[in-house]
Amino acid sequence: MKYDPFFNAHHSPMGAFASFTLGHKCASGGLGMDLGKPADENVYIGMETKEGGSYQALPFFGDSSEDLARFAVGNDQTDADQELITYFRDEEIERDFNVGTDTWKAGDMEFTIYSPVRELPDPVKAEEETIKDSILPAVFVEVTLDNLRHKKSRKAFFGYQGEDPYAAMRRVDDSAHPSLVGIGQGRRTAIVTKDGNVKSGLGFTIDKVLHAEHEFNLGFGLGLSGGLVMEVGPEEKRTFQFAVCFYRDGLVTSGIDTKYYYTRYFQSIEEVADYALSHFSRLTSACRKGNELLEKDHLSDEQRFMMAHSIKSYYGNTQLLDGEDKPIWVVNEGEYRMMNTFDLTVDQLFYELKMSPWTVKNELELFMERYFYHDSVQFPNSEENHSGGISFTHDMGVANVFSAPGRSAYEFAGIDDCFSFMTHEELVNWLSCTTVYISHQEDYSFAETHLGVIQASFASMLNRDHPQPDKRNGLMGLDSSFTKGGAEITTYDSLDVSLGQARNNIYLAVKSWSVYIALEKLFSNLELPNLSNQAKEQAMRCAKTIAGEMTPEGYIPAVITEGNQSKIIPAIEGLIFPYFTDGKEALAEDGEYGFFIQSLKKHITYVLQPGICLFEDGGWKLSSTSDNSWLSKIYLCQFIYRHILGFPWEEKERIADQAHVKWLTHKEHSYWSWSDQIIAGEIKASRFYPRGVTSILWLMEE
Amino acid sequence: MKYDPFFNAHHSPMGAFASFTLGHKCASGGLGMDLGKPADENVYIGMETKEGGSYQALPFFGDSSEDLARFAVGNDQTDADQELITYFRDEEIERDFNVGTDTWKAGDMEFTIYSPVRELPDPVKAEEETIKDSILPAVFVEVTLDNLRHKKSRKAFFGYQGEDPYAAMRRVDDSAHPSLVGIGQGRRTAIVTKDGNVKSGLGFTIDKVLHAEHEFNLGFGLGLSGGLVMEVGPEEKRTFQFAVCFYRDGLVTSGIDTKYYYTRYFQSIEEVADYALSHFSRLTSACRKGNELLEKDHLSDEQRFMMAHSIKSYYGNTQLLDGEDKPIWVVNEGEYRMMNTFDLTVDQLFYELKMSPWTVKNELELFMERYFYHDSVQFPNSEENHSGGISFTHDMGVANVFSAPGRSAYEFAGIDDCFSFMTHEELVNWLSCTTVYISHQEDYSFAETHLGVIQASFASMLNRDHPQPDKRNGLMGLDSSFTKGGAEITTYDSLDVSLGQARNNIYLAVKSWSVYIALEKLFSNLELPNLSNQAKEQAMRCAKTIAGEMTPEGYIPAVITEGNQSKIIPAIEGLIFPYFTDGKEALAEDGEYGFFIQSLKKHITYVLQPGICLFEDGGWKLSSTSDNSWLSKIYLCQFIYRHILGFPWEEKERIADQAHVKWLTHKEHSYWSWSDQIIAGEIKASRFYPRGVTSILWLMEE
Repeated sequence: MKYDPFFNAHHSPMGAFASFTLGHKCASGGLGMDLGKPADENVYIGMETKEGGSYQALPFFGDSSEDLARFAVGNDQTDADQELITYFRDEEIERDFNVGTDTWKAGDMEFTIYSPVRELPDPVKAEEETIKDSILPAVFVEVTLDNLRHKKSRKAFFGYQGEDPYAAMRRVDDSAHPSLVGIGQGRRTAIVTKDGNVKSGLGFTIDKVLHAEHEFNLGFGLGLSGGLVMEVGPEEKRTFQFAVCFYRDGLVTSGIDTKYYYTRYFQSIEEVADYALSHFSRLTSACRKGNELLEKDHLSDEQRFMMAHSIKSYYGNTQLLDGEDKPIWVVNEGEYRMMNTFDLTVDQLFYELKMSPWTVKNELELFMERYFYHDSVQFPNSEENHSGGISFTHDMGVANVFSAPGRSAYEFAGIDDCFSFMTHEELVNWLSCTTVYISHQEDYSFAETHLGVIQASFASMLNRDHPQPDKRNGLMGLDSSFTKGGAEITTYDSLDVSLGQARNNIYLAVKSWSVYIALEKLFSNLELPNLSNQAKEQAMRCAKTIAGEMTPEGYIPAVITEGNQSKIIPAIEGLIFPYFTDGKEALAEDGEYGFFIQSLKKHITYVLQPGICLFEDGGWKLSSTSDNSWLSKIYLCQFIYRHILGFPWEEKERIADQAHVKWLTHKEHSYWSWSDQIIAGEIKASRFYPRGVTSILWLMEE
Repeated sequence: MKYDPFFNAHHSPMGAFASFTLGHKCASGGLGMDLGKPADENVYIGMETKEGGSYQALPFFGDSSEDLARFAVGNDQTDADQELITYFRDEEIERDFNVGTDTWKAGDMEFTIYSPVRELPDPVKAEEETIKDSILPAVFVEVTLDNLRHKKSRKAFFGYQGEDPYAAMRRVDDSAHPSLVGIGQGRRTAIVTKDGNVKSGLGFTIDKVLHAEHEFNLGFGLGLSGGLVMEVGPEEKRTFQFAVCFYRDGLVTSGIDTKYYYTRYFQSIEEVADYALSHFSRLTSACRKGNELLEKDHLSDEQRFMMAHSIKSYYGNTQLLDGEDKPIWVVNEGEYRMMNTFDLTVDQLFYELKMSPWTVKNELELFMERYFYHDSVQFPNSEENHSGGISFTHDMGVANVFSAPGRSAYEFAGIDDCFSFMTHEELVNWLSCTTVYISHQEDYSFAETHLGVIQASFASMLNRDHPQPDKRNGLMGLDSSFTKGGAEITTYDSLDVSLGQARNNIYLAVKSWSVYIALEKLFSNLELPNLSNQAKEQAMRCAKTIAGEMTPEGYIPAVITEGNQSKIIPAIEGLIFPYFTDGKEALAEDGEYGFFIQSLKKHITYVLQPGICLFEDGGWKLSSTSDNSWLSKIYLCQFIYRHILGFPWEEKERIADQAHVKWLTHKEHSYWSWSDQIIAGEIKASRFYPRGVTSILWLMEE
């Protein structure tokens, strides 16, 4: 697999909403916390040339000589030394990108970042050491300089220029932890080692640190760049260990008062560094072991790449908070930073069930406690109110601001496009997550505890179909009164009407069908036969309505009964849920819903053709009428296409993945790490995003 | 007095390192904390036109429609409504700028910011209510809309778009304080009222808040702009009250672990708002009373303007921190954010002695506890070490990072210009501050407690003159070994050698003389006659050396015995100290040092001529050989010129102040609020600066 290696990737602790982002050229990575973008910091990684006195570095920094000028106004100091460091040439740089390790090799140096990919235990139940290992807000770095074939000692360096607006850079050596050598910014970020052979220093520019005539000057407090300088003797090869640490104390969020959960265990960034470095071997071994997750023969290189990239991006968006009486798990929505956006939660579900199933429960509970509402519903172009019911908010807030109870940050009244309500979809999402969680974890006590909400949610779905039971067709027919005369939308809010409109949308319809399938089973298990039958009846109505809309050409229009002719891939998206709610028989081509499954197979075969739902480069195009395609959903539908619907994965399909990798490694836009919304091959929105972990499903195709 | 009213000014609580900066056009003000510059936020202040449905506003915001585009990618939403708000024309806007109040009038609206200017009591000793009133991290705003001559109701608005990178905007209404209506960003900044007739809202742009079709949408959490909307009925005039609040919890500084002292009394920004609004009348009355400080007949409009501006800027840089066992007072150094830079402390001394004398003691104690060192000294071009002694660091750190014990953030070894050591000057500064503090406060117990340090400092000064007592001339003759072969500089680090070089500099020499004068007195009071005599001997040596360098033309060269011919105003700067150390007799023209005072009068008369130390616009030019002139020092030397040396202040001198006001109100550079370093009339460095409170001395000229 060939791709441009200069793309940004998250390297993140779990639950710290932090990332040591690196890979894109210039000052576009660095140590970011609580951000919806990379930290845009200079990162300095390099080594002395064999000639000595000059340096080669990875191209992850720009120029900061203007800073000196700012201080030395009126004087003529310039920064000619900057030229003493040159970038390695692109072709000299190799990158080995994995989920738990990311390694750059250039010249005689090797630079590896280790980041955790491991099960995250319920912090309420886990042993202290396990939870400390899991949520330690740090990632790890090893720098190796191979000087074996050289007869003079040589230096290597690793550092950064922090961009936090509120505090200066500092030397961690000056702290109350005498064993630590490091550089940091304020109390928030730091790069630290316990290797006594490493020297830390600050300078206006990194070359000032490398060329400090007097050791005293390494402590230059006005220095905006921090560097850790290693020296390797003649004919030696040495590896140096570093912890890249994050810390934020105090209350972090408003709306609900929370701190970072790690502050229970670590009182300062120095304590984080000390723990990370004291257990460096165990913790980095775990990261390396994380790579095994993707070392499966059935995965292509492209798949492994996209899985690793999306998992890293997911962790960079995660936040384990300490609420007053319980932990709160938040996944932030990439550049938008909306908190626990429900239409993301439902996609991240499969990853979380594998790695941290308690987080699914935690999210569902907070939706039940605080992020629900009750509405009435209306037919289009009518102001008459009919009974609605419960639904759940689009999200729980944005960028460390929990929204008010019953409100999302996103939803806006009186419109029918982007930012409108997603009442029906989020109701479906709550039921999907809940039924999958119960089934996967066999947590029937959860079902019993929350049976009232489950029943109310079912009733709410029925009401949104049609007020008169005999007129129900299994689809959403009425919009929430909260839209104030607007119309509900789906999570595909930035696409055209083919996926944007909720009512009569087949994407949402198939998801509704899957919820009815799951409820039929759940109610049956809970010995509620009437409800079970009612759910089954709805499922059948829904399936028949959808299948009945098959066109002569062989596809089902995106929005049925409304004259729409768009063709969409996500018609099959909902088929994922029966697979996880013990409903595989409903997916059988020769089962009760065989007619429905067959029609969806026919549909997907029809649409997956060049000029319909394939881009020119072979990549998947979610809607025939929109150029905006979302990778997270493509990953999900690929799994369904292959594994649930049983289509083969051959050369044509492999070209699709090659195209998708190319989208993600775009020279300019790969600044944004893993991103979701791709318009005609260019990353345009939903950048720096967590949702791509739908790719975890591919593991099940072994 | 005529000047462009569109200049930024700080409006700050005391000790919160916070400012509601406002006045410069576009998004260049806002609610900043811990910053070395304005927050660069949109601030929305406006009213509905009489026609209704459109608005006029003060020009303190730019455009943010790109934000909508970022979210609505792929859709065609645009932001045509933005045009519904137009700026008032410049000539419609009046500004009444005072130290405690700052008022803009335009159309039928009036907007006033109240900020405290009051004595700041020692927090350890003060009553709780007094300290809460004093350090409450908030300023106050009143918005009045005069709708008396209009028969329809009209709206007014006040809001902002926060630029903190770590949290979203929010409505304070959603908090646990139901009486509050407000908008804020995260937990850090907020504008709040208790007026139930005000509505708070968020929108992508402010016009979305003004034109929310559905009240529900005022809670749009993705809104980047927050607004508070008032409505005034027909033929009504109403005033609305707001608190502009700041808050930061947790540990703020590294090196020394501290929190903001106000966190002892207020647990959240809501508690700050609640207190500010509950005591609005008392607290704003105190601000208005603060204006009386400058309502003195002997002050010109230009002087009042510069005093008000500099005092506001000073408070924006102040930080009252809660150390482990005591409060720590920090004045940050404007755009550089160095903490308690000693050469600023010595200038801010006079202001602090008036408003908060305990802060002087607090600063001196921390210098004695942590920010001192011992060196040896060397003659120029010699590596032989001679006994040196104690001195004090240039500063205590930078931007919330306390530097290591014995170190400043600034000082750098091996050089002889900007960033070199200021060993001799900071030693003089410690002795100046200490002797002034003791004399002004009559705090002889402080003198007795720290007599050891005072004696050691005196000894250190002697050693820096000459190792052999009989060869001493009262001036600094040796450089600190810490310069590693470089040379010490003075606080005028960005000027040329005329003020930059410490050794043999007459600016520093006259300051040294003043220290000897003060020590003579202090040692005498402490019944240490030998030391007193020794100090006197040094003072006389110093005075004779300086006076002996008078040139035939009538000036004393800036650096004596080294062939320099620069002419400098700060030759007279040191004369301020005897005035404050009960040493007025040493300043008498007919006294023991009459010959010295006369020669300095001759000097200043000679240099204050066009082409020497006057710019073409009449402004003061500190050095004949540098275009870099510093307002704080000009203010100080003006006081000495008039009040100590007895020169009249006539038309020519008034023109100087007019020029200085013009420098500060430069159309572009007045973005930087009060600034110190002016190069040929343009603000260039030391911007957003606290040092201008030397102007407080002008009050003594009544």
